[in-house]
Amino acid sequence: MPAVDAAYALSRLPEAQRQGRAQRKTFKGLDYWHYTDDFQHIPRGTAVFGETVVFGYPHIGRVFALEAGIRAHFRAPFWAEEKINGYNVRITQIQGQLVALTRGGFVCPFTTDRLADLMPLEIFQKEPRQVVCAEVAGPDNPYLESSPPFISKDVKLFVFDLMTQGQPGFLPARAKQAQIKRFDLPAVPLYGYFQPDQIEDLRALILKLHEEWREGLVLKEDSPRDHRAKYVTGHSNIDDIRASSDNLLELPPEYFINRLLRLALFVEEHALPATSELKQALGGAFLDGLRAAMQCYRATHHVSTRFRCRFRHKENAELLLDHLRHASRHVQILLRDLRREDGYWQLEFERVYPALTGMLGDLLAGKMVYD
Amino acid sequence: MPAVDAAYALSRLPEAQRQGRAQRKTFKGLDYWHYTDDFQHIPRGTAVFGETVVFGYPHIGRVFALEAGIRAHFRAPFWAEEKINGYNVRITQIQGQLVALTRGGFVCPFTTDRLADLMPLEIFQKEPRQVVCAEVAGPDNPYLESSPPFISKDVKLFVFDLMTQGQPGFLPARAKQAQIKRFDLPAVPLYGYFQPDQIEDLRALILKLHEEWREGLVLKEDSPRDHRAKYVTGHSNIDDIRASSDNLLELPPEYFINRLLRLALFVEEHALPATSELKQALGGAFLDGLRAAMQCYRATHHVSTRFRCRFRHKENAELLLDHLRHASRHVQILLRDLRREDGYWQLEFERVYPALTGMLGDLLAGKMVYD
Repeated sequence: MPAVDAAYALSRLPEAQRQGRAQRKTFKGLDYWHYTDDFQHIPRGTAVFGETVVFGYPHIGRVFALEAGIRAHFRAPFWAEEKINGYNVRITQIQGQLVALTRGGFVCPFTTDRLADLMPLEIFQKEPRQVVCAEVAGPDNPYLESSPPFISKDVKLFVFDLMTQGQPGFLPARAKQAQIKRFDLPAVPLYGYFQPDQIEDLRALILKLHEEWREGLVLKEDSPRDHRAKYVTGHSNIDDIRASSDNLLELPPEYFINRLLRLALFVEEHALPATSELKQALGGAFLDGLRAAMQCYRATHHVSTRFRCRFRHKENAELLLDHLRHASRHVQILLRDLRREDGYWQLEFERVYPALTGMLGDLLAGKMVYD
Repeated sequence: MPAVDAAYALSRLPEAQRQGRAQRKTFKGLDYWHYTDDFQHIPRGTAVFGETVVFGYPHIGRVFALEAGIRAHFRAPFWAEEKINGYNVRITQIQGQLVALTRGGFVCPFTTDRLADLMPLEIFQKEPRQVVCAEVAGPDNPYLESSPPFISKDVKLFVFDLMTQGQPGFLPARAKQAQIKRFDLPAVPLYGYFQPDQIEDLRALILKLHEEWREGLVLKEDSPRDHRAKYVTGHSNIDDIRASSDNLLELPPEYFINRLLRLALFVEEHALPATSELKQALGGAFLDGLRAAMQCYRATHHVSTRFRCRFRHKENAELLLDHLRHASRHVQILLRDLRREDGYWQLEFERVYPALTGMLGDLLAGKMVYD
């Protein structure tokens, strides 16, 4: 494996461009390239602004069994941080301009617009090459239908890692914690430092998160290799299904099977009773979304979900819509409202799901299917 | 389109053999070929014994919306027959020997063995070229995990059509009804004769079947074109999911999505309340089967389902096992018991699901997944 550093990422860019694995973008006069796939050891989402490389946020593996997963993967103590149900951003300063990059390496006009609301920005003055890795979550976000139960409006930001421009990999945990304290950064809840044999403590922790319908944990080994794993609560899978059931045909069908398996393994490992409440929540997650999709179709002749989020600058709302329209050939974006309210530009748009729209149109017209 | 008759089906056989679309089989000295796919207008399941052709049972289209489906497809009155949740057979006499062919055109050793228990056989003496089309259903069958609620043990047979050797298509409905009466054949329940505008009567009927957790209806137009459609109850989809959730990875993922859509459309069209009982039944259908699969894996290191059925002749039990072992490369068949009991040979076997077995083995060992 080559040494993956900034020089290497820059050197591979022409080849990635030729193969269509890196795309050129512009954000308010800032030109950049981003790797749209993992490419020759450079992670997807790596963004290149001139000579400045911001490496992609690496994949974190998931274990479906808590005890077996810890035994198989952790050789040293680890921290347990909360996994927040939102979208991943990397925030950094480029040519004096703050940008928030999505997982895919695109400058997110929404998050970038709202940064001053979401975190203290002093870190970027004092540490101009620092990259803040964070989850943005809440009901008023432009990407996800689901949001954590403890955020009632708008969005919040939760820092979970720090990187440095030009370098892959993360600051060590203690250095990260020091920076979080020094700059008063809003961080993901840190639930403690565990030995690999503290299975029962971790079990109690994950069950508490499960009861609160939180998403789960990311475990980070206190070792030079910085080994990581994520493990989610049973209820988080029901949340995922609920958020996606009106969108059933746009996702790979494995999406649902994967979550059903996770839920069943969670219930089984932690010897939870399969209560009527649990079954009802699971059945309702599928059924309520589909019924809503059908009611939406009857009323509007398409299946869609409404999103809302607010901006400081109108231009950023327009840039977001442009991005969403170009990001997927499959999904149609309809602007519903963009108005001034409480000092912000309040955007409302609909995401139309064409596969379910088309299928419901056929089936509700009485189409005969040979299945 | 060519005239699809016996001469045509015989003439296409060499080409179908060359292309691997017809397979040669033997049942107790009776040699035959069966078409394993639809081939040049000859339906899958067509079986050829020497010069005698038994045409395959044609596909019946499904409507997902009752009212729209009837409006779109029926121009004349139609009969509504109950759709029984079992497997389809065609029974006929070949060279003095009675055989029951599966949908795929294979002689089923189980059904053939039990014919004298399942129906009066006089029809085959008086009408030696008649083909009896029927559903076989019940808890003690070798193919399906689900069975109708009104059959508490063993299997029963329900006639729904008559064909003639050498001819595709069915006897007209009144001729069929006369034969059913004449030979005292056990028939599927016939719920009446409906005009296409009797939507409310049909709605009341399907809701009654839904409440009784029955499968649904097959509608057969009273016209020379003999147009047909099937329409199932909401609950039948929950039954399907319940019967398949331990078998989640062997089925196409669309299997589940299709049934979720059918259920949601049923609930929506008939304005049923989405009760907690319904949601609980749906969630439980997924969860109970998966939990059972995991408990089975923990106990035996494989995921399997146990089947039982009884035979008059031991040889037929062995022929069935041979067939099941050759029918699928994916599923393993383990003989668990074959003993004499109450005048029958009682067979018990397990069907092992290798994909879920392998996946649970990996996940329960703590495998890390990058999803």
